[in-house]
Amino acid sequence: MGDLIGEVVQSELYYVARSEFDRVARANAPKPALMSLYADMTRLNALYMIANAGSGHIGSSFSAADVMTHLYLSEMDRDGDVFFSSKGHDAPALYSVLISIGVLEEDLLHKLRRLHGLPGHPDISVPGLVTNTGSLGMGISKAKGMVEAARAKGKPKRVYVMTGDGELQEGQIWESLVSAANRQMGELTVIVDHNKIQSDYSVARTSDLGALQAKFEAFGWLCERLDGHDHDAFTACFARLRKETQRPKVIIADTIKGKGVSFMEGVAIDSDVEMFKFHSGAPTADHYQKAVLELEQRLAAKLAALELSPVRVSVAPRPEAPLAASEQVKLFPAYTNALMRQAERKSELIALDADLILDMGLIPFRDAYPDRFIECGIAEQDMVSQAGGLALDGMLPIVHSFSCFLSTRPNEQIYNNATEKTRIVYVGGLSGVIPAGPGHSHQSVREISAIGGMPGMVMIEPCCPDEVGPLFDWCIETHEGPSFLRLASMPYATAAKLPAGYEPSRGKGYVVREGADGAIVAAGLLGVAEAINAATALAQDGKNFAVISLPWLNVVDAAWISEIAARYPVIVTLDNHYLQGGQGQMVLAAIAEHAHAKPRCLSLGLHEVPPSGRTDEVLAAMGLDGAGIARSITDFLSA
Amino acid sequence: MGDLIGEVVQSELYYVARSEFDRVARANAPKPALMSLYADMTRLNALYMIANAGSGHIGSSFSAADVMTHLYLSEMDRDGDVFFSSKGHDAPALYSVLISIGVLEEDLLHKLRRLHGLPGHPDISVPGLVTNTGSLGMGISKAKGMVEAARAKGKPKRVYVMTGDGELQEGQIWESLVSAANRQMGELTVIVDHNKIQSDYSVARTSDLGALQAKFEAFGWLCERLDGHDHDAFTACFARLRKETQRPKVIIADTIKGKGVSFMEGVAIDSDVEMFKFHSGAPTADHYQKAVLELEQRLAAKLAALELSPVRVSVAPRPEAPLAASEQVKLFPAYTNALMRQAERKSELIALDADLILDMGLIPFRDAYPDRFIECGIAEQDMVSQAGGLALDGMLPIVHSFSCFLSTRPNEQIYNNATEKTRIVYVGGLSGVIPAGPGHSHQSVREISAIGGMPGMVMIEPCCPDEVGPLFDWCIETHEGPSFLRLASMPYATAAKLPAGYEPSRGKGYVVREGADGAIVAAGLLGVAEAINAATALAQDGKNFAVISLPWLNVVDAAWISEIAARYPVIVTLDNHYLQGGQGQMVLAAIAEHAHAKPRCLSLGLHEVPPSGRTDEVLAAMGLDGAGIARSITDFLSA
Repeated sequence: MGDLIGEVVQSELYYVARSEFDRVARANAPKPALMSLYADMTRLNALYMIANAGSGHIGSSFSAADVMTHLYLSEMDRDGDVFFSSKGHDAPALYSVLISIGVLEEDLLHKLRRLHGLPGHPDISVPGLVTNTGSLGMGISKAKGMVEAARAKGKPKRVYVMTGDGELQEGQIWESLVSAANRQMGELTVIVDHNKIQSDYSVARTSDLGALQAKFEAFGWLCERLDGHDHDAFTACFARLRKETQRPKVIIADTIKGKGVSFMEGVAIDSDVEMFKFHSGAPTADHYQKAVLELEQRLAAKLAALELSPVRVSVAPRPEAPLAASEQVKLFPAYTNALMRQAERKSELIALDADLILDMGLIPFRDAYPDRFIECGIAEQDMVSQAGGLALDGMLPIVHSFSCFLSTRPNEQIYNNATEKTRIVYVGGLSGVIPAGPGHSHQSVREISAIGGMPGMVMIEPCCPDEVGPLFDWCIETHEGPSFLRLASMPYATAAKLPAGYEPSRGKGYVVREGADGAIVAAGLLGVAEAINAATALAQDGKNFAVISLPWLNVVDAAWISEIAARYPVIVTLDNHYLQGGQGQMVLAAIAEHAHAKPRCLSLGLHEVPPSGRTDEVLAAMGLDGAGIARSITDFLSA
Repeated sequence: MGDLIGEVVQSELYYVARSEFDRVARANAPKPALMSLYADMTRLNALYMIANAGSGHIGSSFSAADVMTHLYLSEMDRDGDVFFSSKGHDAPALYSVLISIGVLEEDLLHKLRRLHGLPGHPDISVPGLVTNTGSLGMGISKAKGMVEAARAKGKPKRVYVMTGDGELQEGQIWESLVSAANRQMGELTVIVDHNKIQSDYSVARTSDLGALQAKFEAFGWLCERLDGHDHDAFTACFARLRKETQRPKVIIADTIKGKGVSFMEGVAIDSDVEMFKFHSGAPTADHYQKAVLELEQRLAAKLAALELSPVRVSVAPRPEAPLAASEQVKLFPAYTNALMRQAERKSELIALDADLILDMGLIPFRDAYPDRFIECGIAEQDMVSQAGGLALDGMLPIVHSFSCFLSTRPNEQIYNNATEKTRIVYVGGLSGVIPAGPGHSHQSVREISAIGGMPGMVMIEPCCPDEVGPLFDWCIETHEGPSFLRLASMPYATAAKLPAGYEPSRGKGYVVREGADGAIVAAGLLGVAEAINAATALAQDGKNFAVISLPWLNVVDAAWISEIAARYPVIVTLDNHYLQGGQGQMVLAAIAEHAHAKPRCLSLGLHEVPPSGRTDEVLAAMGLDGAGIARSITDFLSA
């Protein structure tokens, strides 16, 4: 521990211990200056947590740091009032604040996105966190429930909710404003972290919010606007708002995404070539080094102005990357290629996106076909119903978002489209239990159940990059109705290979590894890779299991599965999904109904809400890595 | 056919033939007067269709009749422009207009809510209907898709969308406004049928819309307001709006629900004891008679003013009611009792509703516990997230809506709550394929798949009124997490009886009819009733099938199902739900995985989007009445 200005080295990471916050707090400093200091110390710790975890949201943590600090250090009655962030991806800042005031154990600083640590998005298992967030747009509604509960108990309390500005594109936000005004929820204060930049671009470019203050006021809310990094402004504003006991209140806090580190501040970034780089993910070692230096220098200056010595930072080793990228494959480059090829063939193809143009591999498409690309913002319901209208009028919409959102937020809208029997391809990224860092709001492990029951809907998942194109082509050239392409976003090592001359055949799988003692039926990059790993482990024990890739998640061919059931004495299904409503349940039901042979059957998959953590530790904890799968099969065989 | 004023008799129904519309159209009358005439003739026909069908939405059809008439007779270019109603329950008025102008065959007047006829809510299989609606809030988004498609093809067209006013409570409406303004969709005109009354009460009382015009304007829309029954006002307004080519336009049409029949006009109805009676359902014979007389008299007066002879109405016999109510049982009175009993026991119990207080049996609760009742309006996402907040703070929320909406619109919100592992009871009405009159937007046949995969979620469905209380009690007193009580709303005849001393036992069913040749496993009022009917039919053929009621829709006890599989040589599962993701798939998968005995298995349920129609004809068409089920089992046994 020591003053490290000028000594930042790439093999190390730096954080501020709780004792330093206490030292600063004891100083005889004006409160606004103190809070500004705390906010910068919080930024240093949030940056540490993200660098240590290898992923996280810097930009939003930094823009929100002053608001959060002000709330906890000045505005809230911590015994009664509550605060939470509806967007939730600013969790590193919130954790840092909670650690600095002793609500959370200091040791958790080192456990962001680790098993039994701090999840990537808020979960109520963490002390001080009052609700699970990260699925956007729900916060104000949940806060209203808390207000109602407090009223019912006769102990009214104030509830503070932070939302993003991109988050305001979600319809639920506006749905939730109405009754807060009608029920005179003066207890409720919303702070919009108006940092102007969402996942990909500026909010203005993605889906401009228009006359934001007028909107809130038309909905009956008292609306103020201020500089979200100015603690004097907050103090004055909260004092004014306290006088209003009837109307719910919203503060539009003009903030800067990445605030606090000059080269991370996203004020002028909005060109096609330059997107905001610090929304999610970890900083490079070089960026980290520069950012720490800058934060330390400013902290030192602020402390010096208060006649305090520089902040003493603690040192931790930078963790090593778990696996060389060269061993891993990625599905999204293959998807981009497949999309571009079909776009060239079919002029009616039109792509829709919900603020994930980068993650969904859509930049080349947008550049090549700007007139056939609709950026919908974070408005999945609107996107899906627009796709419905497009398909009715002869277009071929390809609808993009993360699977966790795409299969659930517009669930009724997808069904409405399905009843029209039009061809729409839904492409879901970030599918499955990994990456597990972001936590359950982003781990998509219930798509098959959520939408797989719709008539005409066919859901498919490729197990390797080579399978992406053929499956996407099948959706467009063969299938007449709606389809859902479930894509893993996490790079992953796999031994899976397609058979020679592979062509998708509805409801039928194919053998990716031979074996006679039984077969593991799985789908997708993770599922098939770990099934192969399990079979390899079992082989060392003298048990020869085949691995069958079944890319069809919600349809299975009766004759094919009967043949499989006759060929193998044991069938193990493996779901990267909850067991109830997953692929395995469908496969086993088909065996019961259609197969003459009756193999012994075992289903593996998720029983519980998956934890947040590193890939290896989460898979191991759930028994879904190769070793765990092999162990389950061995136990089953000996039972 | 003839002038029937004064001759309206209760055994008859009356309508206006196409030829009468043509006669009026040939008259040399001013266009506004002509449209007003058409609108009243349309009302008479909509009333006929609803009386003939035995159900339908009078209030909304009558309030919308002038708007629709004006659009088709004056405003739209019928070769290019399109209109649709987003609320959709005004379909009888739309069908009447489309019949009057020859877009639909006249014969369809007699086939509302009948198989191969006109579905209760719009479906694109009907000529002139451009999109499926009835699931609220999607219309503007779908219209935007149509605008984009037309732009992409280089053939811009105007799109007119009608919404309800209660419908504006859905967040998707506000979500959809944003890009219409940003993308300068001057082609788009929304007409709000502002009839001030939603399903139960006035909009103002349910969830007041506040400064509606200011809201639309803050969202960047050009907003006008007019008397929605004044054709001169429409003519002038549309002329003005045509000049605006950039901004999307919204017309708030002040209308009267039930307009055109004095005692149906819901202008002053808003007390606790008197709700609006003509939202849905059929008019009584007495009300029908009076309404026809009033409409005829006004038509005669209007025609006389134009020096035309009175309208000639055609006569059809009033259809007989299909089954005496005394033979049928209802689940909702039992639910109301169960809720009231638990409310008395548990002061933390709080009920939430989404504008279905009457249908969900909540009036006694609201009257007894006004402070523990939250009317959320048509805002299911907001309702469910509010329930999440309430449950986090120690309340016991019971969340109500129709199953089709409750399991889908707030799908991600239910999951978010489930990850918090709080106790919330979701109660879904109108579950299952019947009543089939409203059509697929309201036929809830995918709840199990939509939410049954969530960890901790237990879904249950009672087969008779006596089972409602024990299952609801189980949700509150035994189960710790979220549950979903799936309730049929349709009265139905059933021979199902609970065993003596019945108590719910998680995942285990019970025998409601003995038999040794096989067992039919089913759930719910319809499922178990028709399984018994099927077993009765099979018995006449010498096959003795047991019927097992399994009220657990998404959990099955492994030991119990193994025992069932050992006891019966044939297991037939019966789903009032799509097969994929339904109860049957779960049962068969459990047999494959857990049972040593391997009975022959057959799964019955829905493969396709169910048709709209009368209960008997729809069940027969899908093979899900007793006779159809028996036939499928017979075929299976002889295969």
